[in-house]
Amino acid sequence: MRGNSFGKLFSITSFGESHGVALGVVIDGVPPGLEFSLEDLQKALDRRAPGQSKGTTARKEADKAEVLSGVFENKTMGTPIAVIVRNTNQRSKDYEKLKSDYRPGHADETYIQKYGVRDHRGGGRSSGRETLSRVIGGYFASLFIPDIKVKAYISKMGPFVYDEDVLDNIDKDLGRYNFGHPEKDQEIEDYLVGLKRDGDSVGGQISINIENCPAGLGEPAFDKLKADLGKALLSIGACVSFSFGLGEEMANRKGSEVSTDRANFGGIEGGISNGTLITLKATFKPTSTVGDKAKAGRHDPCILPRAVPVVEAMIQVVLADHYLRQKAYS
Amino acid sequence: MRGNSFGKLFSITSFGESHGVALGVVIDGVPPGLEFSLEDLQKALDRRAPGQSKGTTARKEADKAEVLSGVFENKTMGTPIAVIVRNTNQRSKDYEKLKSDYRPGHADETYIQKYGVRDHRGGGRSSGRETLSRVIGGYFASLFIPDIKVKAYISKMGPFVYDEDVLDNIDKDLGRYNFGHPEKDQEIEDYLVGLKRDGDSVGGQISINIENCPAGLGEPAFDKLKADLGKALLSIGACVSFSFGLGEEMANRKGSEVSTDRANFGGIEGGISNGTLITLKATFKPTSTVGDKAKAGRHDPCILPRAVPVVEAMIQVVLADHYLRQKAYS
Amino acid sequence: MRGNSFGKLFSITSFGESHGVALGVVIDGVPPGLEFSLEDLQKALDRRAPGQSKGTTARKEADKAEVLSGVFENKTMGTPIAVIVRNTNQRSKDYEKLKSDYRPGHADETYIQKYGVRDHRGGGRSSGRETLSRVIGGYFASLFIPDIKVKAYISKMGPFVYDEDVLDNIDKDLGRYNFGHPEKDQEIEDYLVGLKRDGDSVGGQISINIENCPAGLGEPAFDKLKADLGKALLSIGACVSFSFGLGEEMANRKGSEVSTDRANFGGIEGGISNGTLITLKATFKPTSTVGDKAKAGRHDPCILPRAVPVVEAMIQVVLADHYLRQKAYS
Amino acid sequence: MRGNSFGKLFSITSFGESHGVALGVVIDGVPPGLEFSLEDLQKALDRRAPGQSKGTTARKEADKAEVLSGVFENKTMGTPIAVIVRNTNQRSKDYEKLKSDYRPGHADETYIQKYGVRDHRGGGRSSGRETLSRVIGGYFASLFIPDIKVKAYISKMGPFVYDEDVLDNIDKDLGRYNFGHPEKDQEIEDYLVGLKRDGDSVGGQISINIENCPAGLGEPAFDKLKADLGKALLSIGACVSFSFGLGEEMANRKGSEVSTDRANFGGIEGGISNGTLITLKATFKPTSTVGDKAKAGRHDPCILPRAVPVVEAMIQVVLADHYLRQKAYS
Repeated sequence: MRGNSFGKLFSITSFGESHGVALGVVIDGVPPGLEFSLEDLQKALDRRAPGQSKGTTARKEADKAEVLSGVFENKTMGTPIAVIVRNTNQRSKDYEKLKSDYRPGHADETYIQKYGVRDHRGGGRSSGRETLSRVIGGYFASLFIPDIKVKAYISKMGPFVYDEDVLDNIDKDLGRYNFGHPEKDQEIEDYLVGLKRDGDSVGGQISINIENCPAGLGEPAFDKLKADLGKALLSIGACVSFSFGLGEEMANRKGSEVSTDRANFGGIEGGISNGTLITLKATFKPTSTVGDKAKAGRHDPCILPRAVPVVEAMIQVVLADHYLRQKAYS
Repeated sequence: MRGNSFGKLFSITSFGESHGVALGVVIDGVPPGLEFSLEDLQKALDRRAPGQSKGTTARKEADKAEVLSGVFENKTMGTPIAVIVRNTNQRSKDYEKLKSDYRPGHADETYIQKYGVRDHRGGGRSSGRETLSRVIGGYFASLFIPDIKVKAYISKMGPFVYDEDVLDNIDKDLGRYNFGHPEKDQEIEDYLVGLKRDGDSVGGQISINIENCPAGLGEPAFDKLKADLGKALLSIGACVSFSFGLGEEMANRKGSEVSTDRANFGGIEGGISNGTLITLKATFKPTSTVGDKAKAGRHDPCILPRAVPVVEAMIQVVLADHYLRQKAYS
Repeated sequence: MRGNSFGKLFSITSFGESHGVALGVVIDGVPPGLEFSLEDLQKALDRRAPGQSKGTTARKEADKAEVLSGVFENKTMGTPIAVIVRNTNQRSKDYEKLKSDYRPGHADETYIQKYGVRDHRGGGRSSGRETLSRVIGGYFASLFIPDIKVKAYISKMGPFVYDEDVLDNIDKDLGRYNFGHPEKDQEIEDYLVGLKRDGDSVGGQISINIENCPAGLGEPAFDKLKADLGKALLSIGACVSFSFGLGEEMANRKGSEVSTDRANFGGIEGGISNGTLITLKATFKPTSTVGDKAKAGRHDPCILPRAVPVVEAMIQVVLADHYLRQKAYS
Repeated sequence: MRGNSFGKLFSITSFGESHGVALGVVIDGVPPGLEFSLEDLQKALDRRAPGQSKGTTARKEADKAEVLSGVFENKTMGTPIAVIVRNTNQRSKDYEKLKSDYRPGHADETYIQKYGVRDHRGGGRSSGRETLSRVIGGYFASLFIPDIKVKAYISKMGPFVYDEDVLDNIDKDLGRYNFGHPEKDQEIEDYLVGLKRDGDSVGGQISINIENCPAGLGEPAFDKLKADLGKALLSIGACVSFSFGLGEEMANRKGSEVSTDRANFGGIEGGISNGTLITLKATFKPTSTVGDKAKAGRHDPCILPRAVPVVEAMIQVVLADHYLRQKAYS
């Protein structure tokens, strides 16, 4: 009821503060007998880890997953799977000075308004580190919907724009920054390093292509697939908009223009997947920490490269949940 | 689990097909002792009724609310409130020809994919008539969050654009079409009548201002206020995008540009309301029915005027739910 | 959250006061394409109706089911099914004198303590009439678990005792009173008529046999089958105890005595059905209304005969829910 | 949906197998700002630990609680609280021989029927060790309902019977075995040691008194207080019956006999607490492991002494949940 669980038949329950003892997640609803690989799970976590390249934060976090339950002899058992990641830099003097510092666009002030107390060590629950739970959830979701390909990529970041509505190849290697044109990696790095030097940050847009999603996922009334996907992405810290298909461009179109091409509806009709390619878009705001704090601290000048695996994971969680829901009734 | 309920502490459970016996809703979680007015409830329903003006569909639906439970001597009792609206035009020969006709952008085909069966009498659960349940829910939500002002208005529809980010006066009378510039009512009517004549339709954008929302609503992880508001609006049939604050424009901005004005964050920081004006936007696609069918049938050339009260109601449902959630723990 | 819904994948949401406009239920999670018969549903309702025989209350309630949604051309559609039963004796002068009368064992006083208000017309939500919703739910549950036979019967009522642990034949006709020895019908009638004349009432015990329940229903931790069955029966007004297998007798037994016969465990091991006969027992208290009020009013001297179909229905709801849950994951 | 969570506004989500890496629980819905004491939590866990006395199992389990989140500077933060207890005897050769051994009354066979796989290391999720999660949950529940006194005690175990319906003093020290007559401790020990020597076990009954429960807890329809308490206790492994007030004795009583003393209704009327003493009873079956296995292994000849704190904890969880629910609406 405090909103730390997501999903119905397949659910993730997240816990942990960014500077507490550990972050973790309880994943429930994973069918029994699925092959588990700690190595693959760790790879999934490493994709969202900082310090992958010069353009992202240099914080050295190990982010080592420890599986506490639900897996035995590398098989899922149908019981709840708990995974934790210990925080290695718990005692964070770096953040001490933030104790009385309320950053705009952050949860600092709203936490006090909500709880009357605040964990001044850092972002608490609203830190980006909470997304570890989502990536772990996405890994286990992927185990039983292996045919559905979920690919997120940066389609806009500062001056960099990917100019197609759809990725030319869903298996494409997107380079270090998960941008649609990986050949721009060096340019992007230079741009991000420049931002960091200036104590600035930048927003952007992530696009998502979903291939092989079976038709029939999503419910007609409130749990439309688009509604649950929207909630999933909007529940990520910096996400400020969600759309599918033509999205906001629909506001400028006539019916006679859009009804000619089914792709305009983004793979979802009546709230239910129609078996064609699903296309989504989400906008992320620039990190609010700017100025001297941004130069000195360990903040990313742009969180989009690291948000990509989180976006994919949340979509996998939604699809896994709706997959089980449809299975129950048919 | 089939997604016909929305909300946790305050919830609405919707039922009914567009051409069945009746549509209805069970509203649970309304505190006892609140003053109820059938007249006010009926007014709320009338706002979304068709045939209000030439530019909307001419279908003569009575949409008369009947309260079956939960209210006694014009006071809520704390027990579940059931309200139904009978369908007066159940036997719809008009739709008979649609039996084997799958319309793009509609749920026709996806229903078959999902259920194996379809109610060929009409849209079934994905008809716009299902939104009656939401408007009724919104009315009861408003009874216990009376200070929060939720105002939705059309900010873009074809050539008509409201050029401010925020309504100049939240109590403004918006005219027949709920457009930000009500003095354009006649122009809009001419435009919509023309569309209808041409068998065409148009999309648009609805903006929302929320005044007096208390700080502290929304939960830090998955049930962020923005996430629940997003799901609420994306669960409306034709809604294809949701954003708050600067929205998609954030993709083009640097942190140094946005952190200077808190209004850019749209009243929600860290997923929690901060006590300032909340600003949202949602895009609606044009009705998919075009051509001769659109000329002959009883379809709106633009659903936005009628979507406005539905948008307001869904937001009230979300705010009422989060209001009770915050009350429980503080 | 106000406890008017029961079940997860298969759920019933109940509404209505005993002397309001109507009682009803929204049943969600019924798979599409199942054959529906209004006649069968009505028969199920008639089984719990009063006035079946001299020993039960003489109140003439029509209790006519009206299906508002979810069924089309006598087939379920997979959409929520709403059924209402109108109250024909809404204006109940009989109960007017109860306005300031708090009956022991009833909800009269606790309602005031809970809500601050009370529907003095009658029992409100805690009336026996609320169980209509459960019987309707049970009917729809039975449509997709047709092989599971659920049979409840009175095993103790005043001096009448059924002396076997298990019904000799699950398809046995139990007579007018649903007692294990139907040949005692006349004796029971005389007994109940005598109680009524004396302004008294009596408690009793209902036993339940469940044949053909598939193995594997129930979850290992909190949603053990026994726990959900227990909650289901204890949620019925007058039910004051629940047990399965040997029940309270287990307190007097040694392990060496019980482990020799698997039947002692009542068909449920580790909280999960094991595929053998399931045996349950529930105790019902005597109606609290006694004395002159009981002589004059329309109260049953014993509610057990009418509770039997309610008990069966609640069990069907639980089994249907767990059946779908198990189906989703396997 | 797999039944590993319990409670709505206050909830516990349990995970872990008895011989896996760790057991644990995520407690959500604890209000912020409450004083936390690791020492008190550890004491609560120690009460259910084995090896307290000769009559209980000799297994040396440390059962040391580690708090991973939700607590900062010994105050709850309003965020989810995760607590784990590592299993020290993970590699259990003792249980290896049980691989192909299905014990009656245990989950061994039903697990295979449900999941197709089984954790042959031990009881998996249905082990008594899972109750650690409940005791931890009960501790946090007690922090915000400190005035409600929940006291469980053994009222029957083999030849030992506590002969009053109600404990003479709710603050009474119950001795090593939580039996109503603590002066019998030595006799009980001799009895249990004898059972163990004989490779036998015994069932029994636990009674519960709840003082100072506010009136108004519980909901009128499905979430009656008695229904939720019943589910809570029946979700404990060996519990085979639940009753309140007069319980099964009600089957032998007339209305004229029971309506004279409100205590017969056990503090709950219409499913709602009435502010008087609440009295409950639960029966526990004897441990199924008997014979040579029971002599050699580390099994308790009677689980009741250790079940007492688990019973108390589950009741605290239910009351805390209903306390918050009532708070939200009033």
